[in-house]
Amino acid sequence: MTRIYRPELHPATFVGGATGTWKIDTVRAVTGDALPRVERLEVRVGTDAGVDAAGAWILRGVAGHERYVERAEHDRLKPASPPLGRADAPRAALIPIRKSPGWWALSQDERRRIFEGRSRHIADSMPYLPRIARRLYHARELGEPFDFLTWFEFAPEHAQAFEDLVGMLRGREEWSFVDREVDIRLSR
Amino acid sequence: MTRIYRPELHPATFVGGATGTWKIDTVRAVTGDALPRVERLEVRVGTDAGVDAAGAWILRGVAGHERYVERAEHDRLKPASPPLGRADAPRAALIPIRKSPGWWALSQDERRRIFEGRSRHIADSMPYLPRIARRLYHARELGEPFDFLTWFEFAPEHAQAFEDLVGMLRGREEWSFVDREVDIRLSR
Repeated sequence: MTRIYRPELHPATFVGGATGTWKIDTVRAVTGDALPRVERLEVRVGTDAGVDAAGAWILRGVAGHERYVERAEHDRLKPASPPLGRADAPRAALIPIRKSPGWWALSQDERRRIFEGRSRHIADSMPYLPRIARRLYHARELGEPFDFLTWFEFAPEHAQAFEDLVGMLRGREEWSFVDREVDIRLSR
Repeated sequence: MTRIYRPELHPATFVGGATGTWKIDTVRAVTGDALPRVERLEVRVGTDAGVDAAGAWILRGVAGHERYVERAEHDRLKPASPPLGRADAPRAALIPIRKSPGWWALSQDERRRIFEGRSRHIADSMPYLPRIARRLYHARELGEPFDFLTWFEFAPEHAQAFEDLVGMLRGREEWSFVDREVDIRLSR
């Protein structure tokens, strides 16, 4: 079963276990079931990676294309968005979430209206750039237990800004559709 | 590697080879490379199905949620859309397509404007319902060679209507972003 991904899709496998580049500092179940507490996280390229990994858990995702962002928003977001892997950003968060069947039954215009029109997901995240680097992985159509895996990287001095960002998002209407969320904090 | 799909995702593996429920009548490369000509097609449930299948080719897809359809359109489409598997619809078409990098680099509002605003993909497909049954499978994020696999079913007396439908879609601006397309016709 060969999978050939175009480079912009950034397929990734997150293996939680005894080894890996990232040290896991905390694992917190925000909504629904947690994931087993493990010591370290390894991030592998590809979604078939990790098949034989001795991990306590394995999560897969693919970055994909933009789902809700409009052109004018993209043109503001893109130049402000830093790359992953900055040497001065040794803190990370992996936040897997699942949205409810009710969310997925909405049409595109209804989801956009909640996501940005009322929850201002894009506009109110902008002020946190470029302090917080972010990559959104889609997982729903891979048959995964979560719909999205979001990976964040930031410097220790921006840890409070990161708390503010996730706190803001969790307080908005969009988050009422989240029926499972785990918050994993890491450092290297 | 266990994949657990929610039922509405309809994960499917299309195995082209010597066996299967569907007889392949024709295989035509519309744009780009064809697929090897085989005798029959088997459609299996799941995306890990077919790993050990002796097929000449294997294509996978997941139905997923609506990407461009708005609520008012959904409410017209849904009651007019017939199920797959109708006893009086023994003709089928499997049309795998890939869209260009230029398409995927567009933002959501730009893709919607081309898809429906200018190409009228939804509005001009409506008159073909309920004669043509259809299911769209997404494949891009599965690491597949195509982005979409569309499966159609219809009665022999609606074969010309089906030609009109695909001819209409291929003539529109949206289709200028299709850089690979294979048209497979089947019967049972």
